[in-house]
Amino acid sequence: MPRKILMIDCADEYGLIARVTGVCFQHRLNIIKNNEFVDNQQGRFFMRTELEGEFDETKLLEELAEVLPKQNHMKLVDAGRKRIVVLATKEAHCLGDLLMKTYYGALDMEIAAIVANYDTLAPLAAKFEVPFHHVSHQGLDRSAHERAMLEIIASYQPEYLVLAKYMRVLTPEFVEQYPNKIINIHHSFLPAFIGANPYRQAWERGVKIIGATAHFVNNCLDEGPIIKQDVIPVDHSYSAADMAKAGRDVEKSVLSRALALVLNEQVVVYGNKTLVF
Amino acid sequence: MPRKILMIDCADEYGLIARVTGVCFQHRLNIIKNNEFVDNQQGRFFMRTELEGEFDETKLLEELAEVLPKQNHMKLVDAGRKRIVVLATKEAHCLGDLLMKTYYGALDMEIAAIVANYDTLAPLAAKFEVPFHHVSHQGLDRSAHERAMLEIIASYQPEYLVLAKYMRVLTPEFVEQYPNKIINIHHSFLPAFIGANPYRQAWERGVKIIGATAHFVNNCLDEGPIIKQDVIPVDHSYSAADMAKAGRDVEKSVLSRALALVLNEQVVVYGNKTLVF
Amino acid sequence: MPRKILMIDCADEYGLIARVTGVCFQHRLNIIKNNEFVDNQQGRFFMRTELEGEFDETKLLEELAEVLPKQNHMKLVDAGRKRIVVLATKEAHCLGDLLMKTYYGALDMEIAAIVANYDTLAPLAAKFEVPFHHVSHQGLDRSAHERAMLEIIASYQPEYLVLAKYMRVLTPEFVEQYPNKIINIHHSFLPAFIGANPYRQAWERGVKIIGATAHFVNNCLDEGPIIKQDVIPVDHSYSAADMAKAGRDVEKSVLSRALALVLNEQVVVYGNKTLVF
Amino acid sequence: MPRKILMIDCADEYGLIARVTGVCFQHRLNIIKNNEFVDNQQGRFFMRTELEGEFDETKLLEELAEVLPKQNHMKLVDAGRKRIVVLATKEAHCLGDLLMKTYYGALDMEIAAIVANYDTLAPLAAKFEVPFHHVSHQGLDRSAHERAMLEIIASYQPEYLVLAKYMRVLTPEFVEQYPNKIINIHHSFLPAFIGANPYRQAWERGVKIIGATAHFVNNCLDEGPIIKQDVIPVDHSYSAADMAKAGRDVEKSVLSRALALVLNEQVVVYGNKTLVF
Repeated sequence: MPRKILMIDCADEYGLIARVTGVCFQHRLNIIKNNEFVDNQQGRFFMRTELEGEFDETKLLEELAEVLPKQNHMKLVDAGRKRIVVLATKEAHCLGDLLMKTYYGALDMEIAAIVANYDTLAPLAAKFEVPFHHVSHQGLDRSAHERAMLEIIASYQPEYLVLAKYMRVLTPEFVEQYPNKIINIHHSFLPAFIGANPYRQAWERGVKIIGATAHFVNNCLDEGPIIKQDVIPVDHSYSAADMAKAGRDVEKSVLSRALALVLNEQVVVYGNKTLVF
Repeated sequence: MPRKILMIDCADEYGLIARVTGVCFQHRLNIIKNNEFVDNQQGRFFMRTELEGEFDETKLLEELAEVLPKQNHMKLVDAGRKRIVVLATKEAHCLGDLLMKTYYGALDMEIAAIVANYDTLAPLAAKFEVPFHHVSHQGLDRSAHERAMLEIIASYQPEYLVLAKYMRVLTPEFVEQYPNKIINIHHSFLPAFIGANPYRQAWERGVKIIGATAHFVNNCLDEGPIIKQDVIPVDHSYSAADMAKAGRDVEKSVLSRALALVLNEQVVVYGNKTLVF
Repeated sequence: MPRKILMIDCADEYGLIARVTGVCFQHRLNIIKNNEFVDNQQGRFFMRTELEGEFDETKLLEELAEVLPKQNHMKLVDAGRKRIVVLATKEAHCLGDLLMKTYYGALDMEIAAIVANYDTLAPLAAKFEVPFHHVSHQGLDRSAHERAMLEIIASYQPEYLVLAKYMRVLTPEFVEQYPNKIINIHHSFLPAFIGANPYRQAWERGVKIIGATAHFVNNCLDEGPIIKQDVIPVDHSYSAADMAKAGRDVEKSVLSRALALVLNEQVVVYGNKTLVF
Repeated sequence: MPRKILMIDCADEYGLIARVTGVCFQHRLNIIKNNEFVDNQQGRFFMRTELEGEFDETKLLEELAEVLPKQNHMKLVDAGRKRIVVLATKEAHCLGDLLMKTYYGALDMEIAAIVANYDTLAPLAAKFEVPFHHVSHQGLDRSAHERAMLEIIASYQPEYLVLAKYMRVLTPEFVEQYPNKIINIHHSFLPAFIGANPYRQAWERGVKIIGATAHFVNNCLDEGPIIKQDVIPVDHSYSAADMAKAGRDVEKSVLSRALALVLNEQVVVYGNKTLVF
């Protein structure tokens, strides 16, 4: 039986769940899973519904539109297999985890290509027969470098870009090409330790826990909507380098769990936050 | 605005959510929160809905009964303040946490009385002005002891019994007086280390994590439906006594979190398991 | 057998452990537990040793001084029972946990007095028969208010002050009276959300984890040496108020675990960090 | 500067640390890290010391032998790079993680070969150019199958065998060839759910947490000394298959963390437990 995910947001009103599920019922659709969220301050209603059954998508959306408030957003999407392009630099642990989990089916995506500003990871890409593009930033200004990358990326028509420890800041010009479609892993528990060398900052502050944050990228560095965070304990015996080493596991784990949520269409960007259904 | 929680379970069919929310809409009720679960193997549907608004309860239930399959179960309950009786023995940490959290409003309940088979905790009960009944088991057979306790408990008409480290096994005769109404904290990560002295067992096995389990009590020792579990790390330097000491925090935390879920009507017993909405 | 804890820090050199344990052996002392830390960058050596046996303290320290580098610090202390004064405002959860854990012996301390800028918690203090001093800040300038508090505090000669959700900033003049002797619980995962209303800040940022930090207080707000941190997961359905409510458990747990470490003489302040042995 | 790890166990006596560190000092060795453990019940002393410096190993051990009680065990080992052989069946996640972490240097070992009773994982081994031996159990009795595997394994002279979801029980005859050298990952929080299909057992029991356990293998199934354990939360919406899927991350994480401890010579087997220094 085909499955689809219906995502709705609109002004909050009485009876929205009844109306939406009523239309679905008329189409003989089975509701597998249902989530709602209401922002009472803003009066905004969000709903995610997994539907199973044979149906006419256009007709369903038309009939839903009739029962919803004007200015609603609706989409009917497939969970699962998406095309992604990964951006990386030199570190292997996040890219390696994505490749491996894609290989054994734990992440339902196709890694269409890897674009990196060093060639360090080319042999890793080759093991998994994924096209690897080395676009060095050396000798190019930031804008020229990004244009070169964007051209390659565009040729793969990816649905998401994943920054798997890509260690350069992206300009607003780059980011606006893929609004809410770029997922980054930052190696700290944001908003602590924004910017460069967060493990060094964490060591200097003497924290007892370090973390990682997966978030969508928008114009401000390390300030986009957070998807997933996790932490691990450290103690005074850790140098900054020990923290970085220990942090690799939580970085790759947070990134791949965030990505699994995104691929499964469980994440809604709302302002500068996410709803994770 | 008054709030109620509607709990439904019935045979699974197409359109149940639409029917239930449709009836609620006709009553001009606002749905605050909605959870469903379907057991596909058994074809059973469960729904928990927080409703807000003024309405005629009898009429709502009647109209819901018309749209649901026969042999449904429905109830409309209030979240919050319940009357409980606590059973204890000598250890203060779980009882103390319940008293303190009730005092500052973190647990929405009234501790109507404490019944214990030792008098150790009488001064603690006195601090919070809760009636304390010392029912020693000494010189009584198990049945006579339980009858004595049951008589006192019954006089308080509690909605739940909480075993806050009550260290005696209850007979089926006792338990069947309060079916799915007795919540116990077991000081292990069930089903590991069932029975007596779980920390000793854990120490002997050399585990690296210890835990606690809050569960409803049924006829078999330590085998009722699990509500909540949590763990903490230990290492080889812990003696069994160190584990017991360290475990107190996780025991009281698991018990009070389980109880909060029960008080808030988020827990449904289903066979030998719980659904926690 | 009496137990003492020997704390040493000095310039790092070869053979320090051998020298220290050699002297202890000559005094027929049993070493129960031993921890060392070397800051290789600064060339500084730290050692904590739990000793058991009958011995002449002065003689031991004299002989140790002979084998250690000049400019060493040594102290021989008892683990356990310390006199503390608690500062609080209105919230009961941290104070309540300290009172309860002291009552059943999980924290080896005496709460000599409670000083608060509101009288809200007086009944709670009374339950445990702890002197409660209400020193309102109203109508007093900051300096006068602190002097009034300091006078009361001094009369109890506490070894530590514990800020159990004391919601006012202490001036440097206050803090320097108790250097590295004031322990605060901050309701965020420092250094994220320094300052006022961290749960509001966390909600606005849309984090997926909230935390608490116990630290020593020095001159800069929320910037003293961190002793302990922990976190709990949250999601988009939490309001700032829900976060504050959920955070209470992690706040009290972090505070009492930090305090247990301090009472057990496991914490060394080193620069703006702690070593936790 | 060369580093070695000195491991000692012997009868407990006064002054052991002083004697051992004294001898090390005479050899001008720097002590990087020191750990001790005393089993007071059995009167047994354990010590692990990381040493740095140039020295005569034979002479050091001779001089240590003179100051230690008779019947001591001592060894002087290198942390780091070990030769291992992995046994697997069909599942890729644990093997994949070991290959990937070895590739980027997070596990300091050489995977000399992979031996599996199915050929499913041959392509994965090939990506990393590790010899893969398919030794089907079909048509062979258990003893003949194990002999065939042992012959291949022996040819690689591994220091450890890692069972990366090898789904067959090993006989005592096999295990005694590699005493305390075989590391298994069991997909439950042992001792809960020993034996086959632990996720199915966990689902049937309705637990709220599932886990994984890395342990040495001895003669009794799932009963060897535990090295590392960890858990993840689940809820009523997880089927047994969902638990198995979710459990993959904790399985691979626990296995690789346990292995890192073993490779770094931090694990001592003591009776049916481990000391993890």
